Amino acid sequence: MDLISKVIEDIFKEESLPQNKIGNPTQNPNDLAKMIDHTILKPDATEEQIKTLCLEAKEFHFASVCVNPFWVKYCYNLLKGTDVLVCTVIGFPLGATSTQSKIDETKTAILDGATEIDMVINVGALKSRDYGKVFEDIKAVVKAANGNCVKVILETSLLTDEEKIYGCVLSIRAGAGFVKTSTGFSTGGAVEEDILLMRKIVGPNIGVKASGGIRTREDAIKMINAGATRIGASAGIKIVKGN
Amino acid sequence: MDLISKVIEDIFKEESLPQNKIGNPTQNPNDLAKMIDHTILKPDATEEQIKTLCLEAKEFHFASVCVNPFWVKYCYNLLKGTDVLVCTVIGFPLGATSTQSKIDETKTAILDGATEIDMVINVGALKSRDYGKVFEDIKAVVKAANGNCVKVILETSLLTDEEKIYGCVLSIRAGAGFVKTSTGFSTGGAVEEDILLMRKIVGPNIGVKASGGIRTREDAIKMINAGATRIGASAGIKIVKGN
Repeated sequence: MDLISKVIEDIFKEESLPQNKIGNPTQNPNDLAKMIDHTILKPDATEEQIKTLCLEAKEFHFASVCVNPFWVKYCYNLLKGTDVLVCTVIGFPLGATSTQSKIDETKTAILDGATEIDMVINVGALKSRDYGKVFEDIKAVVKAANGNCVKVILETSLLTDEEKIYGCVLSIRAGAGFVKTSTGFSTGGAVEEDILLMRKIVGPNIGVKASGGIRTREDAIKMINAGATRIGASAGIKIVKGN
Repeated sequence: MDLISKVIEDIFKEESLPQNKIGNPTQNPNDLAKMIDHTILKPDATEEQIKTLCLEAKEFHFASVCVNPFWVKYCYNLLKGTDVLVCTVIGFPLGATSTQSKIDETKTAILDGATEIDMVINVGALKSRDYGKVFEDIKAVVKAANGNCVKVILETSLLTDEEKIYGCVLSIRAGAGFVKTSTGFSTGGAVEEDILLMRKIVGPNIGVKASGGIRTREDAIKMINAGATRIGASAGIKIVKGN
């Protein structure tokens, strides 16, 4: 783990350790539904489809619905008083907007009723080895989230293993509750090897969310066995029913 | 044109006509470079690649560089004093963030140095026939753009012809300077039929930007002949050199 020590040394010289918001790493794998973020993020989703998503989430007791920011208020109103949270996405799916915009988008989403914030890491800055900017970007969103859980989407399919490690370390040091594999809009989704690597880096106290391409119960169980504590999927019902 | 009359009647009952910011519809087709937004929007673009983009734009006198908001300030600093504008993208590429976030993102981009704003229409609201929300969303960005040119990306590959017409009418009535076909991140790019339709709807005084999949001089000329006044492409140099 020499690389990680070096990362920490390089970047966090004068940085005090922020308070991590723990991403429920101890979820019960026997309650699969409560590990699933029931997700629709396609741009052409209609109000009718979002409504169905919420009703299904209520019925199956999923952890959350995961929707684009435009739909947060609508979902919040449909789900208040239930055990289903509203999760949304920030700087999604490219992660390449300004930090100020991610801050503003996060604040608006929380005002609208979101309590889980899945932000996309600044992939371009990460690849340019501008770790300070990547770190400040995540830290700013964690601060704007004001105690609500932040999941950092690494978009693993675009990253080298070294970049994945940097992404994990920067995320947890910036106070994220989860690291998450994929947006579902890039060149690939969650793979077992990435979950194993991410869990190894973040340790036992941070959540790992596997997302992108998880379509069956078998896929989900494989991810959980590799260390995932949350599953992002549009196939949640199929996953819990196991067929 | 019955449908359009109906749209206008339905939505704009008490709405006064906003001031259109004209999207240079009279550009000279002989000066192809000045019709091109030289574009890199992939999330993993590095600082080095963005720098090259700017240097090329300066050399070839493209209309603008089109980059994600994170890179606007960097490009502005590289391009000030030249004839190349900085264009950025808002709510990109899904168009499904909140109107408030699009407003905030636009304001930040302009503070950072952007003078052209390519926003994505709210496709989901359009498909839900919530035309009021689509209109307010565009109008809010036009207002936040504070006189700078706004291009509305319809994401034509996801739309029916009827939805494309609604998108065009809503855009021009909300004060947009351009309508634009595609993000380049969806199921398809610019096609000739869409440019013809869009030009027909918006009339002669609004810009039409063709984007997505334009890779050769031949592609570009075809779009211009169909009514496009701006071309969004990452292959700008190949297009102007014609090989």
